[in-house]
Amino acid sequence: MALPAYIENLETWTEEFAYFFPVNVRFSETDAFGHLNNTNTFVYFEHGRISFFKQIGLMQEWMSRETNAIPVTADLHCDYMKQVYFDEELRIGVKLNRVGTSSMDIHYVALNRKDEVCFTGRGTIVQVSKVTGKGEPWTESEKEMLEATMPQR
Amino acid sequence: MALPAYIENLETWTEEFAYFFPVNVRFSETDAFGHLNNTNTFVYFEHGRISFFKQIGLMQEWMSRETNAIPVTADLHCDYMKQVYFDEELRIGVKLNRVGTSSMDIHYVALNRKDEVCFTGRGTIVQVSKVTGKGEPWTESEKEMLEATMPQR
Amino acid sequence: MALPAYIENLETWTEEFAYFFPVNVRFSETDAFGHLNNTNTFVYFEHGRISFFKQIGLMQEWMSRETNAIPVTADLHCDYMKQVYFDEELRIGVKLNRVGTSSMDIHYVALNRKDEVCFTGRGTIVQVSKVTGKGEPWTESEKEMLEATMPQR
Amino acid sequence: MALPAYIENLETWTEEFAYFFPVNVRFSETDAFGHLNNTNTFVYFEHGRISFFKQIGLMQEWMSRETNAIPVTADLHCDYMKQVYFDEELRIGVKLNRVGTSSMDIHYVALNRKDEVCFTGRGTIVQVSKVTGKGEPWTESEKEMLEATMPQR
Repeated sequence: MALPAYIENLETWTEEFAYFFPVNVRFSETDAFGHLNNTNTFVYFEHGRISFFKQIGLMQEWMSRETNAIPVTADLHCDYMKQVYFDEELRIGVKLNRVGTSSMDIHYVALNRKDEVCFTGRGTIVQVSKVTGKGEPWTESEKEMLEATMPQR
Repeated sequence: MALPAYIENLETWTEEFAYFFPVNVRFSETDAFGHLNNTNTFVYFEHGRISFFKQIGLMQEWMSRETNAIPVTADLHCDYMKQVYFDEELRIGVKLNRVGTSSMDIHYVALNRKDEVCFTGRGTIVQVSKVTGKGEPWTESEKEMLEATMPQR
Repeated sequence: MALPAYIENLETWTEEFAYFFPVNVRFSETDAFGHLNNTNTFVYFEHGRISFFKQIGLMQEWMSRETNAIPVTADLHCDYMKQVYFDEELRIGVKLNRVGTSSMDIHYVALNRKDEVCFTGRGTIVQVSKVTGKGEPWTESEKEMLEATMPQR
Repeated sequence: MALPAYIENLETWTEEFAYFFPVNVRFSETDAFGHLNNTNTFVYFEHGRISFFKQIGLMQEWMSRETNAIPVTADLHCDYMKQVYFDEELRIGVKLNRVGTSSMDIHYVALNRKDEVCFTGRGTIVQVSKVTGKGEPWTESEKEMLEATMPQR
């Protein structure tokens, strides 16, 4: 199988994940084909991403500071590699791949109990000003906070 | 099968519905048992209820008036009578059963193409003041508007 | 506030729960009113109920035995007592209230970090034969297994 | 704003859509930011795609024929261009962009009442044999059926 454009080497790429969030596949998330419905991988990505933002302190920044900046999803991708079934215990990995002026590129991976890659993904989040509706550049402290979480390359 | 406590006579009760909202069962709403997952009937109830509120003009009241009243769900029931599958065309019936001082009791029915009852439900909505957090009585015009939609008995 | 018909005394009723399942409210489960959407309490009930079935060994029975019995939801209720918001840590309590010939009545409670009751619920599950479509009585060993989990009264 | 890689010219690309499926944004699909939660665009894509498959007759093929081929989602993308709110009436466009040996590349667009592009997407569906788990080539009649729906270029 060809790899998605955002993954050069699957093994190296997977090893770079340092933050993981546990998910237990719910019965209501399966569909009549008997497996996890394809729309729910994005629910897991969002839940993992927000947990990651909380852990690095960014969520608190967004909720406490006076400027009206909010995070907006610009795009989202998911590549499905292995079927997932009811009651599986997954670990959703989240890592920053790149930090822009007011955006960030986030990568995702879902590993099962055998550490097999079930699905991968990526997406851009942009920090937007509620007032102007335009991209709101990261402050120095935010940029440092974000870069500190990036994998060493 | 015993009827739910809120239905005395299923035929009479079903004939009282005057407002219907169409729903086409989505694949993502099924589960690994191959049928509509039981949690989605409440999604249909909410969608039908809000459409009903829009039709009678109450939704506009809530969104335009100066007093800060909002509708809050106090309880919800669903009774499952017939299994529902992917791609079925349902009609979700919504009717007011009783109007209280600041609340209303709403009944729901889901009919399939053969007009068979697939599931029924009921629930209380309370109008609450955002300021005091307590029940906010209907105005005279709201009460009239609501009572005008009730079945003649 | 009046209690739901299935709760005589809220304190005694709540103390009877012995099995709890943790849930962290997802952002995608909130709605434009800023709180947990009312349809998702039933998702939590289902996830908690199935975890409970796994813990007592019934899920394994259903999946391994030769007779074609499956569990079917007959009805579901939810009573909303306290608003729930994004990222709250809830504990979903599940207990058997009554065991019938081929059915069981299950009660649910959601407690927040302060052990406040946020919402409660109940519902009947019926064991049905895939062949006849009718209620399939519990075996002796299942009945014992189920009764062993019931609160002492 | 830069266009996604799968769109060369947004106007031409949008004009190529011939099949549209209506969607009314549900309240339960919004989130605490007050808009459509980003995970639900994929629910709309799936619902539109399956309706498209039914219209061209492919769904019936999958469900009736003796060979055990099923459609599997290989990847999915969504690009968010304009915020969507509760109760908006959207039209979800679905078109085939490319037909491979056992796969197809599908494009999606969501237009609001003013015909503005709210979000776009694409994804690959692969026809897989249930027996071998490998790609199952289209038959001649399927290939013709599929190519007949593609835009003239």
